[in-house]
Amino acid sequence: MTGTMKAAVLYGINDLRVEDRPIPELLGPDYCLVKIGACGICGSDIHFLRHGRIGEFVVETPMSLGHESAGTIVEVGDEVKGLIPGDRVAVEPGWACRKCEFCRSGRYNLCRDVVFLACPPYDGAFAEYLAWPADFLFKLPENVSLEEGAMIEPFSVGLHAARRAGIRGGDWVLVAGSGPIGLCAIQAAKANGATRIIVTDMVPSRLETARKLGATATINLAETDVEEAVADLTGGRGVDVVLECSGTSKAVISAVEVVKNGGMVQLVGNFMEEMPPIPIQRMVERELSVSGLFRYVNTYPASVDMIAAGVIDLKSLITHRFALDEAPDAMMWVDENKDKVIKGVIEP
Amino acid sequence: MTGTMKAAVLYGINDLRVEDRPIPELLGPDYCLVKIGACGICGSDIHFLRHGRIGEFVVETPMSLGHESAGTIVEVGDEVKGLIPGDRVAVEPGWACRKCEFCRSGRYNLCRDVVFLACPPYDGAFAEYLAWPADFLFKLPENVSLEEGAMIEPFSVGLHAARRAGIRGGDWVLVAGSGPIGLCAIQAAKANGATRIIVTDMVPSRLETARKLGATATINLAETDVEEAVADLTGGRGVDVVLECSGTSKAVISAVEVVKNGGMVQLVGNFMEEMPPIPIQRMVERELSVSGLFRYVNTYPASVDMIAAGVIDLKSLITHRFALDEAPDAMMWVDENKDKVIKGVIEP
Amino acid sequence: MTGTMKAAVLYGINDLRVEDRPIPELLGPDYCLVKIGACGICGSDIHFLRHGRIGEFVVETPMSLGHESAGTIVEVGDEVKGLIPGDRVAVEPGWACRKCEFCRSGRYNLCRDVVFLACPPYDGAFAEYLAWPADFLFKLPENVSLEEGAMIEPFSVGLHAARRAGIRGGDWVLVAGSGPIGLCAIQAAKANGATRIIVTDMVPSRLETARKLGATATINLAETDVEEAVADLTGGRGVDVVLECSGTSKAVISAVEVVKNGGMVQLVGNFMEEMPPIPIQRMVERELSVSGLFRYVNTYPASVDMIAAGVIDLKSLITHRFALDEAPDAMMWVDENKDKVIKGVIEP
Amino acid sequence: MTGTMKAAVLYGINDLRVEDRPIPELLGPDYCLVKIGACGICGSDIHFLRHGRIGEFVVETPMSLGHESAGTIVEVGDEVKGLIPGDRVAVEPGWACRKCEFCRSGRYNLCRDVVFLACPPYDGAFAEYLAWPADFLFKLPENVSLEEGAMIEPFSVGLHAARRAGIRGGDWVLVAGSGPIGLCAIQAAKANGATRIIVTDMVPSRLETARKLGATATINLAETDVEEAVADLTGGRGVDVVLECSGTSKAVISAVEVVKNGGMVQLVGNFMEEMPPIPIQRMVERELSVSGLFRYVNTYPASVDMIAAGVIDLKSLITHRFALDEAPDAMMWVDENKDKVIKGVIEP
Repeated sequence: MTGTMKAAVLYGINDLRVEDRPIPELLGPDYCLVKIGACGICGSDIHFLRHGRIGEFVVETPMSLGHESAGTIVEVGDEVKGLIPGDRVAVEPGWACRKCEFCRSGRYNLCRDVVFLACPPYDGAFAEYLAWPADFLFKLPENVSLEEGAMIEPFSVGLHAARRAGIRGGDWVLVAGSGPIGLCAIQAAKANGATRIIVTDMVPSRLETARKLGATATINLAETDVEEAVADLTGGRGVDVVLECSGTSKAVISAVEVVKNGGMVQLVGNFMEEMPPIPIQRMVERELSVSGLFRYVNTYPASVDMIAAGVIDLKSLITHRFALDEAPDAMMWVDENKDKVIKGVIEP
Repeated sequence: MTGTMKAAVLYGINDLRVEDRPIPELLGPDYCLVKIGACGICGSDIHFLRHGRIGEFVVETPMSLGHESAGTIVEVGDEVKGLIPGDRVAVEPGWACRKCEFCRSGRYNLCRDVVFLACPPYDGAFAEYLAWPADFLFKLPENVSLEEGAMIEPFSVGLHAARRAGIRGGDWVLVAGSGPIGLCAIQAAKANGATRIIVTDMVPSRLETARKLGATATINLAETDVEEAVADLTGGRGVDVVLECSGTSKAVISAVEVVKNGGMVQLVGNFMEEMPPIPIQRMVERELSVSGLFRYVNTYPASVDMIAAGVIDLKSLITHRFALDEAPDAMMWVDENKDKVIKGVIEP
Repeated sequence: MTGTMKAAVLYGINDLRVEDRPIPELLGPDYCLVKIGACGICGSDIHFLRHGRIGEFVVETPMSLGHESAGTIVEVGDEVKGLIPGDRVAVEPGWACRKCEFCRSGRYNLCRDVVFLACPPYDGAFAEYLAWPADFLFKLPENVSLEEGAMIEPFSVGLHAARRAGIRGGDWVLVAGSGPIGLCAIQAAKANGATRIIVTDMVPSRLETARKLGATATINLAETDVEEAVADLTGGRGVDVVLECSGTSKAVISAVEVVKNGGMVQLVGNFMEEMPPIPIQRMVERELSVSGLFRYVNTYPASVDMIAAGVIDLKSLITHRFALDEAPDAMMWVDENKDKVIKGVIEP
Repeated sequence: MTGTMKAAVLYGINDLRVEDRPIPELLGPDYCLVKIGACGICGSDIHFLRHGRIGEFVVETPMSLGHESAGTIVEVGDEVKGLIPGDRVAVEPGWACRKCEFCRSGRYNLCRDVVFLACPPYDGAFAEYLAWPADFLFKLPENVSLEEGAMIEPFSVGLHAARRAGIRGGDWVLVAGSGPIGLCAIQAAKANGATRIIVTDMVPSRLETARKLGATATINLAETDVEEAVADLTGGRGVDVVLECSGTSKAVISAVEVVKNGGMVQLVGNFMEEMPPIPIQRMVERELSVSGLFRYVNTYPASVDMIAAGVIDLKSLITHRFALDEAPDAMMWVDENKDKVIKGVIEP
């Protein structure tokens, strides 16, 4: 398919433009062309908009944003099997080399050659069309919407966290922070069988949403001492797992106390500070495991299934919808209304 | 506490008598005396009644039956902590030496010196009172009944199976056989996050119960080819895990075909045949894992929690209730009405 | 590179011909051309020669044999990184699709689209040249010979077995059968830290070789009861792991008795019988794990390192060497002298 | 057995006295009386001597020191099985409640009620006799000396670290710090199959010892940049596992860089700083696992076996021997000669 399409392209700090671009070509016989139906606005998109970079990733040439997407296949390459035009698919936004040590051993998220949507220098999915390798597209069944398909991306972070933490039936979990990722972590913990899910935050409305999506207890950090509260809620035992979604040193200090001896602190959020003070000696003495997390791996098939089976609710994450033309204003507005918005979605 | 109590004691084949026995003494300072409130009738109890033995375990002196029990604490030894008279508890029916290689490494079910209720020469819990070590009693919260507490024993088999099989969120599971253990396996699979649970049996009413308790699809083996049906239901992929609850060579032969490459066949049921023909070369070629199961280990705390959280429904397993005096007739009747009964419970 | 080369090609049962064939082309920019230096004669090669098939794999058109190979790179495709002409490499003989569920999750040996050397319809490495994808070629350091590089293939089976069995430092292992695969399993067990390695066989000379390569005790099945002998050697405890390399029902029956409660029986050998009698009820009662094995996955880098570090000795496996022209006679001779030969190697 | 014995008892800071004490009684029918043959001097003993405390553990009444011990059984309680007077045993110095969540699940080192030698208020093994539960005594075969038996205690820390880190055959490991624990970690890594063991320290003599005991490469931190050196030694890949034995923030900062993506940093040493700056964002981005360690669990049987099999060399750790009467001076001398001493042993 040839012609032009609209895309929301970042030209510089606070300079996002909706403009015409060529419809992308299939780069190989295993590619599909996807007409994007929904693409979530992520904190990282806003960070690129506001700062032009995230850490070492610098936007040097105009780049479209967006990586939480789903759409409908309009064209398939000669070697594509199992997908045909008309299929609705979720887009896993990072494809890997498939050949290195990491790809071969089931951890392709750690591949050094990942091509990731809206991560410089690669364009994103705030666009009408996307050309993408078929093995990173996942067919959605009839009872899963494109919006839900787009939300698999943030949910995948939670699911990967729950898996790395080894959450299983009957576990007690504390989720620190109930922003969008925290809400995904709650659902992932529940979908893996956690029976008690304690959630912390400082914003009452977020805690309310957390309760709707699976929290069995919530702690408002502005009012309550978290260590005491968890001791009360667990009879002094502590939780099996902490899913740390807040990215603060303070939360790590709490995590190391509220988890049981030998327990797991799974880091999910990114830390603003490169090298904050961390209670490492307590980690040693209590034989804790503390585990990093980079994106996700092999989460899409299970996520599709969880939505279809009704065990997770990703629809409720979406609070605001925008047209592609509105993308520049929408991103600004979302950034300025973080307390009102869980997740905004661009729908080209 | 001294005095006498009623107990249902097996004197020989088909010779179960309700008689007076001394209330058991606490055998150490870490024992509690439990007034039994509910004790399930298990297939193994009936097997002892009908045959006087199970394999190498022979009833040589009169022995009371029953091992699926819960009750109320009436007396505690001097060193018991955390339990007081009046507490309602589930009884884990096998206590181990706590010192051997298996006990030390978290697999006390494999201890060679386990004392197990109603396993010769040890008496069971079809009795008014039971003296038992405190560390094998588990306090029930208010919203869990004694009947549910008693059902933790059969559920534990399912939970141990789900854990050994490594079931996690999003897995597809086939449960072969939907008798009482199969129904527990279904719930354990669900409680660990399985999104598709396909259940087989030949009895339509059992399959109906299976659907109520979590099966997402059922296959009547009397009518349908299981390999074709599973291929249809899974798009040719097969299931991640089979929980084999039927104990037949035929079911193993199917299991080895319906599971995906590299998948897990978890044996849950006991086999009548010691050495049936098994498709071992298919196991090799498909790199399957086949795993035995002996009772359960460390399942009680999580099970209590799962009931309390409402993620499993053990109440629905109980279809018939009997007084202790009725035990002899009740066991005969249950044995003769297997198609009507899921689980009968003696309530002293 | 163009021109012709010699190859040993199977035309039918017992009809292997050394003939001229075109040097193979690089099929893509990620291929290398390898000049084969050594290629082992495997039991499966002989089976194809004698029977024209292995199970469902039937030789329908002339096919060269050989899959245990190493050689020197003479040409590289445009996209090959990290390998240049002159590099000496071991050839991993099965390359996979890199895109399916199995490839993505670190189990590419289970991929349904593996292209495997000398497995119909694909040609093998009894030839002067081989064109092969670079990601399935592994550079050998100076202190590792091409012969050793070729032996990584059979060793990989042992290493994959030791890994799947979870062998770690201090484990006690029984290796059933000390043919070539058994000898590789012994070394793999040792290289993963097994401190006691008991080896069984009926041929005294094989047991002697086993002792040279790491067995700490040997049992001649023709003379000694294996269950008694293992009980003696382990103080009644049994071994942690059995690596079953003999492919017989009888060995499985022993394995299930000599392993400790809760232990692991790792199947390594293939079974001639599709469905032999297996003591499955003992597996259940003793909570054993029994695990199939299909080829190997991610074993080449570690194997290269183990040879270089001197912790395994693959040189000693090679007892006979032949020129490519001699291949037809050599294979017949090896087949007829199994008791004298551990491993014969074709050296083009 | 009654009467008195000599013991080295800590009365206060720098006040260790060898005095007569009653020979301890067997506290239960499962106890043995052990005549101590060798007891290592640990850094923690010296810390108690110099400071009267370690963290929250304060010596409030006179307490004998020493916890790395082995000896000969002279008396056994009525219920002891498998041990008789005359047996030579290693003493595992911490026995646990055997009943709590941690004891039941195979992690008794995390039990909150551990009785640990020379950890206030419990006496230690710088004494002629010790009464100890039989299940924490491990029989030594003839070819293992009491000195080696005593060294199982520090080796256990290394072995537990290697196990928690999941080291297996072919792994590349960096051991940071080559003091006594580092030297044990090196040997434990090797005994689990590590093929490359890179060791860092600032003291050349220690690095020399490291090379003797299994290091395949050493890096003198005083002279060489560790990140560059590891990149060189591993072709830019990094190591699979870091065993961090130095307890410094600086070493953690290096560890997080020299380990491969997705790798494991196993903390082994204790940190003087409670809350040092830690590169936690790098842990997140690189998906590292960082894992605490508290003592060890289930390490004694394997350690005995490893010594007997000759795969570890604990004799070489012992550089100095002292009589019990010399204990006060010996401990001072060892403290002042850390560069000369690997391990000093008291031999009553």
